[in-house]
Amino acid sequence: MSFFPSALDDLVEKFASLPGVGLKSAQRMAFHILSLSDEEAGDFARAILNAKSNVHTCPVCQNLTDQEECSICRSAARDGEVICVVTSPKDVAAIERAREYNGKYHVLHGVISPLNHIGPDDIRIKELVDRVAGGQIREVIMAMNPDTEGETTAKYISRLLKPFGVKVTRLAYGIPVGASLEFADDATLMRALEGRQEI
Amino acid sequence: MSFFPSALDDLVEKFASLPGVGLKSAQRMAFHILSLSDEEAGDFARAILNAKSNVHTCPVCQNLTDQEECSICRSAARDGEVICVVTSPKDVAAIERAREYNGKYHVLHGVISPLNHIGPDDIRIKELVDRVAGGQIREVIMAMNPDTEGETTAKYISRLLKPFGVKVTRLAYGIPVGASLEFADDATLMRALEGRQEI
Repeated sequence: MSFFPSALDDLVEKFASLPGVGLKSAQRMAFHILSLSDEEAGDFARAILNAKSNVHTCPVCQNLTDQEECSICRSAARDGEVICVVTSPKDVAAIERAREYNGKYHVLHGVISPLNHIGPDDIRIKELVDRVAGGQIREVIMAMNPDTEGETTAKYISRLLKPFGVKVTRLAYGIPVGASLEFADDATLMRALEGRQEI
Repeated sequence: MSFFPSALDDLVEKFASLPGVGLKSAQRMAFHILSLSDEEAGDFARAILNAKSNVHTCPVCQNLTDQEECSICRSAARDGEVICVVTSPKDVAAIERAREYNGKYHVLHGVISPLNHIGPDDIRIKELVDRVAGGQIREVIMAMNPDTEGETTAKYISRLLKPFGVKVTRLAYGIPVGASLEFADDATLMRALEGRQEI
């Protein structure tokens, strides 16, 4: 049972539904919203609606964008014959921060994970195969997290791509096994890109 | 520099402005919003606007309410001659959970804190004095946190209320129920000894 007004309880419940947020933190967040000006609270609500309505996946690389086609896909300065395949948009951000890679990307939005009932058709593998089948692709770099699911996904994709005569590589194990790509430091990511090997 | 669409960056920034939320947590929250349905994201935004526009302070006790006067102030079943003075609406919720108190409340929305430039006029002390001056109040219970600022505030208020001939009390200090004497701090033990009662 709660002793707050229902509109406040509703907001606490919304914040508590976010990943990693418990009830006490959600209460602090809701009280923080009440302490904002009407304008600031309106800005917060609008930011949610804007992100939800304006951000979508790029039709080419499947990365998140608020434009028709993402800025990396549109860039003529980047090598369009190399595709780096990653699990999530956060991994694109991580690799971009390393300032070493100058090709394009493909975001799978997940990995093959039978335990979680995620099969090859549940992530953006078909879109990658279509890109390789249709374009002048020289090399595809697998940049999944170095865990079982990541490696399974990389091997599955490399088998699909072999018939097109494309070179398939993966990041070198400069990345500590078991860590998350999102949290790798720039130097480690750079080594991993330099040391990529054919699979 | 960020590598996310600006609408997503905006949302990350909003979440990162909440108390206790860092950049990585804010990113997870923003990605969670993107994973919601349009309807769910709309509900979230509406919950913020609703809480902000519907929740205000009760004109009598200053607690948060979404009605004209809060349910505790309106209740005829509660003893209107006793007022429990607390720092925040969360403290009302904490005391209500104990199911022991049947009087009314007064919420100060802060404590006197010279270091943070919060003086007596910055919290709802005047409203409490007006209530005591205007009504049939028998007892006022000070229920601030047992720290320097809480005690200063309680003493300040009790001096203001004395001229009205009202009984001013404060919560007992002592060993928390379920705690171990071995780990109690010196100040708590001293207070517990001072406040010892015959059994």
